[in-house]
Amino acid sequence: MKRICFLAAFLLTATTMMAQTTKKSFTLNDLLSGGSTFWNLQPQYMFTTWWGEVPVELTVDEAKVVREKEEVKGEKLNVLFTTERLNEIVGETVVRTCTYLQFPYVDEPVVKVQTPKEIILIDFEKATVVWRGQIAEGATELVWNARSRAMAYCIGSNVFVQTADGERRQLTTDGSDAIVYGHSVSRDEFGIMGGLFWSPDGQRLAFYKKDQSRIPSYPQVDITQRIAATTVDKYPMAGCETEDVSVAVYDVRTKQTVWLQNPKPMTDYMTNISWAPDAQKIYVFELNRDQNFMQLYGYDAVTGQKDTEPLVEEKHPKYVEPMHTMTFLPWDATKAVMQTRRDNWNHLYLIDLTKKMYPEWRNEDGGGTSCDHVKVTLLTPGDFEIRDFLGFNQKEKTALFIGNVTHPLHHTVHAVRVKGERVKSEKLRLISVGEGVHSATLSANGSQMIDTYSSPSVTRQVSLIDVKTGKASSLLTADDPWKDYDVPEITGGSIKAADGETDLYYRLIKPVGFDATKKYPTVVYVYGGPHAHNVQASRGYYFRGWEIYMAQLGYVVFVLDNRGSQYRGLKFEQATFRHLGDEEMRDQMCGVEFLKTLPYVDADRMGVHGWSFGGFMTTNLMCTYPDVFKVGVAGGPVVDWKYYEVMYGERYMDRPDENPEGYASSSLLPKAKNLKGRLQIIFGYNDPTCVPQHTLSFIRACIDAGRQPDLFTYPGDGHNMFGTDQVHLHERITRYFEDYLKSEKPMTEK
Amino acid sequence: MKRICFLAAFLLTATTMMAQTTKKSFTLNDLLSGGSTFWNLQPQYMFTTWWGEVPVELTVDEAKVVREKEEVKGEKLNVLFTTERLNEIVGETVVRTCTYLQFPYVDEPVVKVQTPKEIILIDFEKATVVWRGQIAEGATELVWNARSRAMAYCIGSNVFVQTADGERRQLTTDGSDAIVYGHSVSRDEFGIMGGLFWSPDGQRLAFYKKDQSRIPSYPQVDITQRIAATTVDKYPMAGCETEDVSVAVYDVRTKQTVWLQNPKPMTDYMTNISWAPDAQKIYVFELNRDQNFMQLYGYDAVTGQKDTEPLVEEKHPKYVEPMHTMTFLPWDATKAVMQTRRDNWNHLYLIDLTKKMYPEWRNEDGGGTSCDHVKVTLLTPGDFEIRDFLGFNQKEKTALFIGNVTHPLHHTVHAVRVKGERVKSEKLRLISVGEGVHSATLSANGSQMIDTYSSPSVTRQVSLIDVKTGKASSLLTADDPWKDYDVPEITGGSIKAADGETDLYYRLIKPVGFDATKKYPTVVYVYGGPHAHNVQASRGYYFRGWEIYMAQLGYVVFVLDNRGSQYRGLKFEQATFRHLGDEEMRDQMCGVEFLKTLPYVDADRMGVHGWSFGGFMTTNLMCTYPDVFKVGVAGGPVVDWKYYEVMYGERYMDRPDENPEGYASSSLLPKAKNLKGRLQIIFGYNDPTCVPQHTLSFIRACIDAGRQPDLFTYPGDGHNMFGTDQVHLHERITRYFEDYLKSEKPMTEK
Repeated sequence: MKRICFLAAFLLTATTMMAQTTKKSFTLNDLLSGGSTFWNLQPQYMFTTWWGEVPVELTVDEAKVVREKEEVKGEKLNVLFTTERLNEIVGETVVRTCTYLQFPYVDEPVVKVQTPKEIILIDFEKATVVWRGQIAEGATELVWNARSRAMAYCIGSNVFVQTADGERRQLTTDGSDAIVYGHSVSRDEFGIMGGLFWSPDGQRLAFYKKDQSRIPSYPQVDITQRIAATTVDKYPMAGCETEDVSVAVYDVRTKQTVWLQNPKPMTDYMTNISWAPDAQKIYVFELNRDQNFMQLYGYDAVTGQKDTEPLVEEKHPKYVEPMHTMTFLPWDATKAVMQTRRDNWNHLYLIDLTKKMYPEWRNEDGGGTSCDHVKVTLLTPGDFEIRDFLGFNQKEKTALFIGNVTHPLHHTVHAVRVKGERVKSEKLRLISVGEGVHSATLSANGSQMIDTYSSPSVTRQVSLIDVKTGKASSLLTADDPWKDYDVPEITGGSIKAADGETDLYYRLIKPVGFDATKKYPTVVYVYGGPHAHNVQASRGYYFRGWEIYMAQLGYVVFVLDNRGSQYRGLKFEQATFRHLGDEEMRDQMCGVEFLKTLPYVDADRMGVHGWSFGGFMTTNLMCTYPDVFKVGVAGGPVVDWKYYEVMYGERYMDRPDENPEGYASSSLLPKAKNLKGRLQIIFGYNDPTCVPQHTLSFIRACIDAGRQPDLFTYPGDGHNMFGTDQVHLHERITRYFEDYLKSEKPMTEK
Repeated sequence: MKRICFLAAFLLTATTMMAQTTKKSFTLNDLLSGGSTFWNLQPQYMFTTWWGEVPVELTVDEAKVVREKEEVKGEKLNVLFTTERLNEIVGETVVRTCTYLQFPYVDEPVVKVQTPKEIILIDFEKATVVWRGQIAEGATELVWNARSRAMAYCIGSNVFVQTADGERRQLTTDGSDAIVYGHSVSRDEFGIMGGLFWSPDGQRLAFYKKDQSRIPSYPQVDITQRIAATTVDKYPMAGCETEDVSVAVYDVRTKQTVWLQNPKPMTDYMTNISWAPDAQKIYVFELNRDQNFMQLYGYDAVTGQKDTEPLVEEKHPKYVEPMHTMTFLPWDATKAVMQTRRDNWNHLYLIDLTKKMYPEWRNEDGGGTSCDHVKVTLLTPGDFEIRDFLGFNQKEKTALFIGNVTHPLHHTVHAVRVKGERVKSEKLRLISVGEGVHSATLSANGSQMIDTYSSPSVTRQVSLIDVKTGKASSLLTADDPWKDYDVPEITGGSIKAADGETDLYYRLIKPVGFDATKKYPTVVYVYGGPHAHNVQASRGYYFRGWEIYMAQLGYVVFVLDNRGSQYRGLKFEQATFRHLGDEEMRDQMCGVEFLKTLPYVDADRMGVHGWSFGGFMTTNLMCTYPDVFKVGVAGGPVVDWKYYEVMYGERYMDRPDENPEGYASSSLLPKAKNLKGRLQIIFGYNDPTCVPQHTLSFIRACIDAGRQPDLFTYPGDGHNMFGTDQVHLHERITRYFEDYLKSEKPMTEK
């Protein structure tokens, strides 16, 4: 449900925000990523990339080396090329901005330009075009391999390969709405993001086949046609027929395709495909439909033969969820790292393919069991989760990652030695500088890093860091872009969960012009589902722009990450298993109890808003605690998990026939009758994620129960609204609270 | 668009309603036909039917003759049978109420009982079952002929006949979603109400074939399926592909089917099928797709051969609209009556099939031309419209009809001599007694009539009337069922239309507890389209229950029948031709100007509500006069006539390619940007009449223009809501005015 994470994807990060007066006010256009003035008010940003070991800053006009010493000289020596120069070399305008350019070869002065029509390699030292490859018309899913310069792509549902010399070959012919080749499978769950996988040498292409012929098409209606018409949207609902996934390998040299020999019903999900460095083998994390038994298997890439035994197996009474590919060590093709949460936390493990183990099932701290057939060693012990595996420092033989090692809300960069022995957590070396939330990219051999972070007190800091020495050079320290504005006070903190033990983190935003003697209407914003979090120690504690707007209108806004949400470990997430909503709401009600202790919170004027899983939570809270929440706005909600998809839904809820009580008790349909406050439900009319059947079924249940929710839909929009629709949506959400929650005595249903 | 007439079909009629105090208040359940207590508060009603010349009152328990003299005797002689007795005769419970029974034979003591499984003829004097006919499982469209006792019916899209002896025969085999036999065609326009037509002797069956294979199916989504799915709903949109209609005749004796030989593109609509008394011929009113050229043609029922020339032809630069079948005179099979508006008013004409005329086109007062090939004589001259043709008095040789002869708002029963000469209007003899709105049924030979009427001062009066003498015997004088309730004052009146000449009639309802010194929020209820009217001189001036509710909540309610609406003649209706909405709104604004002259109307708090065409009007008024109407609720609106159906839409608008300016200027999509007040649009999620594309396109246009209408939908409902949904809907409509119009300063959009 990664596409369900909330609307506005903020690229921004931090600055201190304290209540101020007699300054400018924000419009929604200022605060939402779809707003017309949003980018004017964002912290300065820096586009960077790596050319081998050379850090490069990319601007619209040029690409320049960001070595600090050369900046000091004040000379233009550090400019690699300009946009204008690239177009001169090619002899036509092929690039309008350098911002997104890449350097595909570590040692060669070559930049890759990709237009809708072709890929061009330009030697910017010799000022020549090294290579051009035409992109076939209608090509999608394009994946280019830098070594062979071959392209793989799809046209419609079929796969094509074009070699460096321009020769095109169609690999599949029976692609259709039902049979789809080369695209992502399993609805992008399990970390799957595409369906074409080049071997490192670019001579072999693995690709997915998805047979969804047994899946009915959910009737999505396109009203922009002269006469409205449905579009094909194969949607596998929990417990219903689902897709068959298989994997083929095409060999560019032999022009032969072989299929990985993995007959159903051995596995239902084939995820996180990776290549051995020598391109002789493919590794696949395989999972049964119940999602409680995972095996990591190797396949012979030439014959398609499956290994006789897996490398690793894991079981869990709730679920296992492989999310990451194996990654081989650059200096040792017999070893690789993988990520699992078998010890509760998402950690890096070293797999030594040469050291066979006697397979035996062992209990793990995550509550499941594992059975390793080769030696597997935990690299990153500790009560934290790895958010991003960044890669390796090849000189030091370390792995670098971002994780919340120092505090659950801080995401910092660390290095760990990659040895075949279990390492002590003290051996995790902090590389990044500054508390907060970091992101980073490594140079080709991992000896340098460009690190970007923000925190509640740092708007944005970009630094070049030497991984070995930890020496950091500042590249950018962003100013507060809101210094002329009336900004509300944002604080972070924690409370105990409903289990009485677990720490939950919140963000609290006070109204602009806060007066401690007043009582304010208060809105809880909620998501609450897995794979997402709303609170972290980045700028403004990861605020959403709409919250600033609401604070400006005189609301307290409160956001709490309940159990079930992201980066707090497997048990924290799995507390909700088979009864989604229950523990999440219990935790949110702990947040409400906390709010009631605040003298400026008007407990008689509490509202709630959320989208997707948060729409489920919002509707659920309105119906479960009708005397607490007077006004709610629920967006694209799940209403009954039986209408949600197989892959995500069955992971957390099992199948309806296996968990009838859980499906019944988590359904909002029987709760419709409890609705008392004002609830507006908003959905994308063409939502392919939480299909309209959710909202419409709830509306029907409300009508039958004599309740009066409000409703709105965005025709043509999917699960989220973007651009001007996003602004329109938030005007709408805001107006609803203004209409019904703002006055001293909120309007309720009757 | 007859299915678009407003929600509540009130069977009720009249009583005086004056403002009263300290009495009971109504709930919506009391006032709406779908309400749980509605029928408790309706005027007494009387179910009657005719057994030849014997008037029969039908109750749950019995059928009794309503001759007054026998009532006076106080004896039970007048009871024909009881429900219990019928079940005793049959030996099983086949009837639970006598209310809907029929006497199919004038001279025989036989009553017809129809259950879901069979038709039973019972001789209630001999106490025997005369005949039983099983009804085939799944049969729909059932039509039974009393003379032959044959049944015609459909199963799915195919036609079947079952003769009196029970033998069944399937007449068509290729029926499907696309090819439909035996059902109504042309979307029930042109007075078409079914697709099976028995000849008088029950030996021949004419039936429609509708080939709609070229029409796309509008994607209606059924969310009650496990996975939502579309249902087939062939919907021909204006200017697009439409259906082919043809007519077949099956002969029960020969078991042969012949097709009426009428090749396309001669005619597009074959309407108002009627049989000659001897069953040798069939008559069809045929109309071109442009609906401006009508011909009445006879066909040989044995060969299917079309007559070489028509009986009657009519053309009109706007449109002609045949709505009624020919009806032969019972005493002369060479003559028939038909109805047309060729002289502006819907009148009865006598056709003499024996008197050939030299065909020449003549100008008519309705603005069109006619060409009669046989002698055609106007029977009912005058500036009024015939609403219902009741039949003939065979003794007097008169035709009886209901028409607004005496006043546009009064519908009274009149008789006219049927002779082949044009009659003077003085010759129209008033039969009914009492001013108001009458309905009536004639005895078999037309010498008696049961008349029911109401007026603003008469709740309901049922009388038995001798047609010749005019002698009336009262059968029922209903009490005021609301005498214990606080009832608002309802008045009727007229203003001038925007053309400065035409009288328009209104109904005005003052708030309960009216105080002339106060200013009240005021809601205009509007329909405004053809084929419907909202004001007539029946009980409460034809009030709708919701208006009483609104008056009770302190609103003034105003209803005006603008030009374009029903029973005011062709020119009145055709004022709107090719630019629907314009004149209608101009007239409604005359109503607003009138309201502004009333000191108790708060012109700053005016709202508007309407459904279907009235939803079009409401949305249009909100966008066209954004400073006049602050709050609107539009139901199931037409938004752009290009999304409406061929039959109704092209009549009033022509095709989009013929009238691009009219379609463009009447579309509400470009007007969305003008929306300023609060507008809620409500639609049945499965509306097959004004398909959801209307509302959703308008919502999209509003979003794109940055406007914020509100929205609601009733999943599973069609164009109108019934039962508890109707009550829910009106709670919703009411709440919207209460939320936004009630307060002294109405909330507007921003």
